[in-house]
This record gives sequence, structure tokens and C-alpha cells, in this order.
Amino acid sequence: MGKTAAALIIGNELLSGKIQEKNLAFLGKELFNLGIRMSRVVMCLDDVDTIASDLNALRAAHDYVFTSGGVGPTHDDMTLPAVAHAFGRKLVRAEEIASLIRGYHGERTTEAHLRMADVPEGAELISNEHVRWPTVAIENVFIFPGVPEIFRMKFAVLRERLSGGQRYYSRASYTLCDEGQIAPLLADLERNAVGVSIGSYPTFSQTDYRTKVTFDGADLEACMRVQSDFEAAISREMLVRSE
Amino acid sequence: MGKTAAALIIGNELLSGKIQEKNLAFLGKELFNLGIRMSRVVMCLDDVDTIASDLNALRAAHDYVFTSGGVGPTHDDMTLPAVAHAFGRKLVRAEEIASLIRGYHGERTTEAHLRMADVPEGAELISNEHVRWPTVAIENVFIFPGVPEIFRMKFAVLRERLSGGQRYYSRASYTLCDEGQIAPLLADLERNAVGVSIGSYPTFSQTDYRTKVTFDGADLEACMRVQSDFEAAISREMLVRSE
Repeated sequence: MGKTAAALIIGNELLSGKIQEKNLAFLGKELFNLGIRMSRVVMCLDDVDTIASDLNALRAAHDYVFTSGGVGPTHDDMTLPAVAHAFGRKLVRAEEIASLIRGYHGERTTEAHLRMADVPEGAELISNEHVRWPTVAIENVFIFPGVPEIFRMKFAVLRERLSGGQRYYSRASYTLCDEGQIAPLLADLERNAVGVSIGSYPTFSQTDYRTKVTFDGADLEACMRVQSDFEAAISREMLVRSE
Repeated sequence: MGKTAAALIIGNELLSGKIQEKNLAFLGKELFNLGIRMSRVVMCLDDVDTIASDLNALRAAHDYVFTSGGVGPTHDDMTLPAVAHAFGRKLVRAEEIASLIRGYHGERTTEAHLRMADVPEGAELISNEHVRWPTVAIENVFIFPGVPEIFRMKFAVLRERLSGGQRYYSRASYTLCDEGQIAPLLADLERNAVGVSIGSYPTFSQTDYRTKVTFDGADLEACMRVQSDFEAAISREMLVRSE
């Protein structure tokens, strides 16, 4: 697994629990499927200096950084100025975005709407024929809105461009085992299974299994080999299903 | 709003999108209601050094830190050793927890189960007559499991102990306004409303409103005054409801 990513999630409303965050699990799974490992997430308040300093730390340490939130027209939307500040660039009006905004709002367009067209100088605007509202990108940073529907729509445009260089696979065994009982077995398997990462997730909701064990890695055959070693080591009646 | 909090959410499975994070919004709202502002969240991989260094940064900068996840019996559960490492303390077996584990698992108790009783030396164990499984606390750090049901059950025990010193209020106006139209009005109100924080949240799901505007602060009357100024400034037919 070569490349890594981080996410910077921006918004007072997420930290005060007013709104449930809905983009992270989507982003993590999409990146995983592209062979990119999301290895860190920071969630911060709507504050220019905080956003800029978090962004600078994350972009130095990861191949890609995705921001979510803070790109609307109101006073609490700070992300674009903060990104410009982080990169030491001016904000300049992107005519391509301004004209989309004018096309959408017509005569009711306000200066506040047009703030959404103010992007850091030299930013790249990424769109395609299906999704005309561009995603703003600067070096390895991609700026997304917090609204889940728009986040997903815009991410689809980036999918072909991002590439981790290798596919990543995940297998899962759903079992009736107790985690404490199989912990030594899992630790043994993990020690011997080079390139396969083993996870163990107990459930406390009402389901047909008790512990889900996962086998992840770039080599599907190796994942399946470790999974079958695991399944052979537990009693047959403990295995609910295999995926 | 006096006190601040941060959360450290631990787990590879959250970052790869295998599991949807479910404790943050709950925690943020509970803290808000206690007058404590959650101002930062970090989500990191199951790695002792990463967890320890993130924890040290967060506990130095906030009144309270809550960790979630990584406290089970398997090889990928690193939180307790990482917290001990962060505080420069040894792990010692807490007999109070070990005996609860033995009582629960009986003869099937394994050494892996008992690892969950290994806590940093000098840690405090917080429980009450309703919830006997204790929450492990060290100075201003509280260690929670990631399982949402248990997280909530244990948080209830802490509620009376945590205190922000002041209550915090939130009022909301649900409107048909477009965010760009009301942005200048909100910026004006925010500038003049000392101690009231104004938020604006457009919805793109099918609902009966278009933009929710919130008024938060420690002074309920001040929040209501700014809210009523806002509602008086928009046309009457734009207001759907007020809470």
C-alpha cells in the first residue's frame, strides 16, 4: 500500500454534535478501494489560523489531503481563505466558477455567493462533462464541501485521477467466537502473515455473528490463505459466513 | 464557555471506512449541554507511538480529552499501552477490573481478556452502582471503548463529574432563505452580537426548510434577542419555524 491520505474536516457544527459527520467513512472506503490509505483525520473549528496550521501539517506528511466543509457563502465559511493563507497565496476570483454561480442564481446573485468563487491563486479547477462545478485543488490538497450529496458527486470526478498504484483487498470471516478466545490465534497469524493486516471487530448489536475478523492486503491470495488458516483453526460451528 | 475538550478516536477500521464512527456527535452534544466546548478531534491508526504523541498534544491543550476505541483483547488494541507510554507510566493489572472480567467469562477467561485490566499505574477507576465496569481516567484523560452502546453507558457515569461551569444554549430558525441572500445580514448580526455565535446550515435533503440558522451562547436572552432581530429582518413568509 503505497500512498497515504489525510482528511481535514472543518466545522463548529460537527464538533458540537449539531450535525453528524457523513463524509469520512465514504472517503475512507473510496480511498481504500483506490489503494490509498487514509491514515489520519483532524476535525477542527471554523478558524482561519487553525485550519491553515492543520492543513500545513497534514499536507507535509501525506500524499493527498482532502478538506470537507466551510466553503459556503456565509461569515462562518473560512476554508478557502485559510487554504490560501496556508499556501501563502492571494485569493483571486475564478471566473469559471463565478459564471456558474451567476448562471445558477441569475439576478439574485449576491457578493456573498460570489465569495465561493474566490480561490487561492494558481489553484487548479477539476471538473468533467457530467459535473461542471469544479473541485478546487492546490498541489496535493483537494477542497470539498461538507454537504454529503455534493461531496460524493464531486469525488466521482477525481476517482480516475487518484491512484494508489495498487489494488487493495479485504476478506472477512463472521464468527461466533469471543474476541478474548481467539486473540492469541490472531496474534500468531498476524506475526506470520507478511503483508496481510488482521482486524477483529466484536458486535454488540443484534446480529447473526459475534466477532468479524478481517484480512486486508494488496495480495488477494495471501489474504485468502491467512483467512483459510484462521477458519481451519476455529471450530467449524463457530464460522457463520465468509466473504 | 469556559472549558474545552478534545477527542482522540482510534482505529484503522474507521479510517478505512469499514465502520462508521458513531461516538463523536453524541460526545459533542453531551459536552455542549454540559457547557464544555469540543474544539478538536483527531482520528488515528492503531499505533502506540502515534496514539501517545497525539494524546500528549491534545491533553496539553484542552481541559478534557476523551479517547474512543482500541481497548479490546486483541493484538490491534493498543490504547491502554499507548496511554501509559504517553504518561511515562507502567501498565499494572487493576484487580477490580480483572475480577469483573473473571466474573463475566468464568472458566473461559483468557490472558487476552485480562489484558483489558492492564491500566496505567495510578489510573483512577470511575464507576457507580448502575455501571460497574469502570472508566479508566488519568489526570484529564478519560478512556472509552469504541463500541457505541458501551461508550454511551459509560459516559452517563461521568456526566455529573464533568462540569463546564456554565450552561450553554442553542436557538434555531428554520428558513426558506438562500444562504447567499442572508450572508450579509448574518455577518452584521454576528459583528454586533457579543457572546452569541451564529451558524448557518443549508440543507440539500428533502425537508421543509432551506437554511437553518443557529444562535448559540451562554446567555439565553442574548441568543433569543439576536434570533428575533434576525427573524424581524427576513420576510415573514421565509420563516418556517423557530426553536
